Amino acid sequence: MSNNSIPKYAVGIDLGGTSTKFGIVDREGNILFQDRIPTASEKPVDFFIQELYNKLQPMIDKMGGIKEFIGIGMGAPNGNLYTGNIEYAANLHWKGIVPIAHLLTEKFGLKASLTNDANAAAMGELMYGAAKGMKHFITITLGTGVGSGIVIDGKMVVGNDGFAGELGHTIVRHNGRLHKLTGSRGCLEVYASATGVRQTAIEFLESHKGKESLLRNFKEEEITSETVYDCALKGDEIAKKVFDFTGEILGEALANFVMFSSPQAIILFGGLTKAGSYIMNPTKEAMEKNLYQVFKNKVQLVFSNLKESDAAILGASALVM
Amino acid sequence: MSNNSIPKYAVGIDLGGTSTKFGIVDREGNILFQDRIPTASEKPVDFFIQELYNKLQPMIDKMGGIKEFIGIGMGAPNGNLYTGNIEYAANLHWKGIVPIAHLLTEKFGLKASLTNDANAAAMGELMYGAAKGMKHFITITLGTGVGSGIVIDGKMVVGNDGFAGELGHTIVRHNGRLHKLTGSRGCLEVYASATGVRQTAIEFLESHKGKESLLRNFKEEEITSETVYDCALKGDEIAKKVFDFTGEILGEALANFVMFSSPQAIILFGGLTKAGSYIMNPTKEAMEKNLYQVFKNKVQLVFSNLKESDAAILGASALVM
Repeated sequence: MSNNSIPKYAVGIDLGGTSTKFGIVDREGNILFQDRIPTASEKPVDFFIQELYNKLQPMIDKMGGIKEFIGIGMGAPNGNLYTGNIEYAANLHWKGIVPIAHLLTEKFGLKASLTNDANAAAMGELMYGAAKGMKHFITITLGTGVGSGIVIDGKMVVGNDGFAGELGHTIVRHNGRLHKLTGSRGCLEVYASATGVRQTAIEFLESHKGKESLLRNFKEEEITSETVYDCALKGDEIAKKVFDFTGEILGEALANFVMFSSPQAIILFGGLTKAGSYIMNPTKEAMEKNLYQVFKNKVQLVFSNLKESDAAILGASALVM
Repeated sequence: MSNNSIPKYAVGIDLGGTSTKFGIVDREGNILFQDRIPTASEKPVDFFIQELYNKLQPMIDKMGGIKEFIGIGMGAPNGNLYTGNIEYAANLHWKGIVPIAHLLTEKFGLKASLTNDANAAAMGELMYGAAKGMKHFITITLGTGVGSGIVIDGKMVVGNDGFAGELGHTIVRHNGRLHKLTGSRGCLEVYASATGVRQTAIEFLESHKGKESLLRNFKEEEITSETVYDCALKGDEIAKKVFDFTGEILGEALANFVMFSSPQAIILFGGLTKAGSYIMNPTKEAMEKNLYQVFKNKVQLVFSNLKESDAAILGASALVM
C-alpha cells in the first residue's frame, strides 16, 4: 500500500445492549477482520472506548494505519445521525447523552458517523441483503428488543431529529404489558422480542395451569425464546400458542407500518426469526388480515438472509463509505 | 391574455365522499373561482364527470380557455398518484378501479394528476398553511373519515404503490369497534372521525344509563359530533367524556406515527377540530404519555389554519403546477 493511495477501508461497529461487534470492511463490502467485546455499559464510556481501541487499533495498523481508512461508522441504540450522540438509550446503562462519535474521533483520529443500530442493519440489507435494489422497505429486528429501520424512496428515514423509526416502542395493546425500562404499556417490544416471548410463555404456563407442556420441564429462569422454539418443534401446544400470540401482535403492528409507508417488503431478522414458520405464519396471517384492501397481498414478508452481525457491521461501515 | 402566454392557471378538485369542491387557482395560490357539486357516487362516474364539466368548463372559458391552463389536479379517497386511478375507495360507491385522471383528460383536454385526498390537503398545508417551510410533518383529517398525509424530507410519502399514508385504517384497539365499510376491527377511523364521535356518544349514553346528560334531549339520529360539542360546551359530563375517550385513542395513535417518522408537527384539520380544546387537550396528553423518551415535548400538535376546502383545492392544483 502506498502513502498516496486513496483510503480503502472503513471500520463498521455494531454496538448492542450486551456485546459490540466490529470489523474492517473494504469498498466491495468484504469484512476482512471482525471481533467483539462486551458492551459493559455499566462502566464509564471511556472504559468502553479504550477496550474497543485495544482490539481495533491492531487491525487498523495491520491494514496500513489510519491513512488507509475513510472513517468509522457505528450503529447503536438511540444513535443520532445528526448529532453523533447516543441519547437516552433504554437498553444501555450510560445515562443521558453520550457523544460517542466525538469520542471515537478523538481516540482513533478518524472521522466517525453514528446512526441507530437498526438503521445500520437496514443499510446492510439495502446494499448486500434481501432489500438489494428496493426503494421502499422496513427492517424489523426481533432480538432482545425490537428495532426498526425504514427506507422510503431509497433513503433511510431519520426524521426531524434523527430518531425516526422506533417502531418497537409503538403501542400495540392499550394498557398492555409494562415495559420495565421505558415505563410504557403495551408496546411492540414487550411482546415481539425474545424477552417478550419468554414472558408470554411464563404467563401462558400460569394461565393454563391444568394443561401439560414440555415447558414445565424447565425452571422459570431457564425459559427463553429458544426453549419455547424447541418445545414447539416437538409439538408442544402451549409453545406453539406462544408463537401464535406473538405473531398475531407482530402482524397487526406490521399492517400498521405498511399503511404508513407502503413498502415493497418487510425484512425480519434477529434471534426470534430462528423460530421460522412458527413465527412467520401467524405474523403473515395477522398482517394480511389487518391490512386495508389496497395493501393486501402486495407486501413481501421475509427473513433476512444476512448474518445479523454482518448486516449491522456492513451497514455501519457504509455510513462513511 | 395572449395566445402566446405560458399557461397561468390550474384546476384544483377535492373529491370527497359527500361533495366535490373545485376551483381555479393561479400561480400565486389564489383561488379565483370555486364551487361544489354532490359527489353522487351511487351514479356512474360518467355522470359525475359530466356534472363537473357543466360547472367547471364555463369557469375555464372565462379565464381564456384550456390554453391558459396547465392542467387539473385532483385529490380523492384512495387516489393513486402513479396510476391516476381511484382504487377500491371504501367511502365511495364506485366499485373497483376508476380511471378518473384519464376521464378528466378525455373530457377537458387537459392533463390531469390525481393523489389521495389527504395528500392533497397536506400539500396545501406545505405551501400555504401551518406546515409552510417544514420538511417533516403529518396532516390528519378528522372528518367523516380519518385521512392522512405524510411529508418526510419535504416530499409527500406515497410509497411503493402510491397508497402510503392510510393512517385512518391503522389498528388502534385490538378486536375493537367494527368498521362497517372495510370489515376491520378497531381502526383509528371508527373512533376519531365525526362518525366515531357520534357512535361513542350513543354507546356512552347506553353504558351510563343512570347518568343525566343533555345529549338525552336528542333522538339518536340527531346526535352528531356537533351536538356532542355543543353539550360539552354547556358542561355536560358525558359529552366531555366522549372527547376524552376520542382524544385518548387519537393521541396514542399520533404517538405511534411520531415514532415512525419523527415529524416536526402534526396538523389536525376537518370537522372534529371545531371541538377545540375539548379534543386537543386529551389528544396532546395521550400523545405525550405514549411517546418514547427521545420524542417527548418535541412535536407541535396544532390545528390547521387553512379553510379545509381551500387546503385541498390548493394542494390538488399544486399537483400540476
